[in-house]
Amino acid sequence: MTDPRVAIVGATGAVGGEELRILEERCFPLEELHLFASAQSEGVQVSFRGRNLTVHEAKPDGFAGMDIVFFAAGGGTSKALAPEAVKRGAIVVDKSAAWRMDPSVPLVIPEINPDDLDAHQGIISSPNCSTIVLLMALAPLHHANPIRRVIVDTYQSASGAGGKGIVELIQQTRDALEAKEPQHTTFPHPLAFNVVPHVEDFADDGYTTEEIKMLNETRKILHLPDLPLSATCVRVPVPISHSEAVHMEMTYPMTPQEAREVLSKAPGVTVQDDVAHKHYPLARDAAGKDDIFVGRIRPDMAMDNGLALWTVGDNLRKGAALNAVQIAEELVRRKALLQQRG
Amino acid sequence: MTDPRVAIVGATGAVGGEELRILEERCFPLEELHLFASAQSEGVQVSFRGRNLTVHEAKPDGFAGMDIVFFAAGGGTSKALAPEAVKRGAIVVDKSAAWRMDPSVPLVIPEINPDDLDAHQGIISSPNCSTIVLLMALAPLHHANPIRRVIVDTYQSASGAGGKGIVELIQQTRDALEAKEPQHTTFPHPLAFNVVPHVEDFADDGYTTEEIKMLNETRKILHLPDLPLSATCVRVPVPISHSEAVHMEMTYPMTPQEAREVLSKAPGVTVQDDVAHKHYPLARDAAGKDDIFVGRIRPDMAMDNGLALWTVGDNLRKGAALNAVQIAEELVRRKALLQQRG
Repeated sequence: MTDPRVAIVGATGAVGGEELRILEERCFPLEELHLFASAQSEGVQVSFRGRNLTVHEAKPDGFAGMDIVFFAAGGGTSKALAPEAVKRGAIVVDKSAAWRMDPSVPLVIPEINPDDLDAHQGIISSPNCSTIVLLMALAPLHHANPIRRVIVDTYQSASGAGGKGIVELIQQTRDALEAKEPQHTTFPHPLAFNVVPHVEDFADDGYTTEEIKMLNETRKILHLPDLPLSATCVRVPVPISHSEAVHMEMTYPMTPQEAREVLSKAPGVTVQDDVAHKHYPLARDAAGKDDIFVGRIRPDMAMDNGLALWTVGDNLRKGAALNAVQIAEELVRRKALLQQRG
Repeated sequence: MTDPRVAIVGATGAVGGEELRILEERCFPLEELHLFASAQSEGVQVSFRGRNLTVHEAKPDGFAGMDIVFFAAGGGTSKALAPEAVKRGAIVVDKSAAWRMDPSVPLVIPEINPDDLDAHQGIISSPNCSTIVLLMALAPLHHANPIRRVIVDTYQSASGAGGKGIVELIQQTRDALEAKEPQHTTFPHPLAFNVVPHVEDFADDGYTTEEIKMLNETRKILHLPDLPLSATCVRVPVPISHSEAVHMEMTYPMTPQEAREVLSKAPGVTVQDDVAHKHYPLARDAAGKDDIFVGRIRPDMAMDNGLALWTVGDNLRKGAALNAVQIAEELVRRKALLQQRG
């Protein structure tokens, strides 16, 4: 079996750049790697495994001969170009929201629902960053003790809006420290020294699309189409890492210690829960790490069989790029298994 | 009737300074004003209504002849000195946690439970800042439609730890922008560009004292000793204003529009809820304002008869100093009424 030929669409963005670093770090097996982005990045040089690769404008014909195409651009690009890649024989791993709720598209966190990959028809979606940070903590507990209700409030970083989000936060912060009026274009209001309860766009019922994603994606990934889940998604002045306060009702009683034991065995999860030593997950510490960190596990005072916890993860890595690469690794592994069997 | 003789203990701190400004702004009727603080502030000059007042060390004999003494210092000072002021005939309005849960001490938000003042035995407590920001939104809704369950996650500002909290946040931010390792003494971890799920100290069951205060104080103020309430209290890198994501179960169905109508009539509350125009409460805008701001009112997806909302308030003003001054105003008004009747 030869190694796959891989392309990244959106290679010059925050998530695309992280995908490149992760492919490098994890020695992802590659026959070829092609980098695509919008027309304005045509000709940009990017280093990968000691070689310089040239970024080209993403066009349908560029996908010819590719086995796996990572889409790390916006939903519009995925909507337009992912079917073109599939038409040319590639499997698409898409980090945008474009295809996630399509019933024919698996929405996968490899540690949680890898078997959903088998039903793919060319496109596989990677969930929203805030959903991944939630579910890496929730799913192992759910498998031990079915969850019946979830309330989650998020503390999401500027990089959830891409690299330009970090740049805007830093510039606003410098301006605020010099008593200049902070400017904003990426965020709906100044984010420096502020908290903004508005991530993405407003939809029906006063919810944002980000909040609706957390509901719908959680239901799809856990195969719980009626799970009651309520989210408030909030942007905070942090460059990288999403933090989330989670309150859940379980089917049976579960002690915090039992939950810690379940989570400490969950792949991709690190339990940081020693409050006597001020040890709990922090956005600052999670940035750049692969795992999702869970702590502050305690009985929930307002729920029957309730548990409350705090979960934090790097939204660019496990929240986006790493999960997409892990989906591709799982595809390669499954293909290899099928070939061994066949 | 003569105007009251008033003292402030902790006059040089963040809340004490705010109390001075509020007494000035609101033309609080005063016969005398005496300022007290710790020994190290002895002799400091503070301007009030165009005059310079001298700060003296807080000692029991200083309270002789006072009618109202505001305690705006720590719990230790209140525990030690509030009974001394009462012994000398004063009514104490205490912003610390020292007396709040004492059954003989009214815990009062004047817009919500002013009648509890009548049972006072010398000491009246003002609630914790995060409780006030929550209850200004919750209580009017509860009076229209009894609440049965509350989940609240907070986004609390640096000034909740006093003026030194703001100083530390700003210094840490400057250091982080210069790639220096940020130092911390007031907060348990660096707060700049970070989110810290740890306000005050850890107590039993993995909860912090701040979270337990929100539970116990809410139950006491609303006279709901069994209300299920779960809180996660989180510090965010914001100088002033606490923000809170609230999820509540009501007894009967209530539309967001009905909730907006109730809240728009509630004294001390401003509804900011026009998401189509990106209009919702923001920490940055609430700082320096007297009102509590409520928005993002929507059905809660995880609760029966559920409502979710976002509430923001200046933790130094309504969250602390203003509420204490309003308690004193209410005392003066009630005393005047009694004298008229008598």
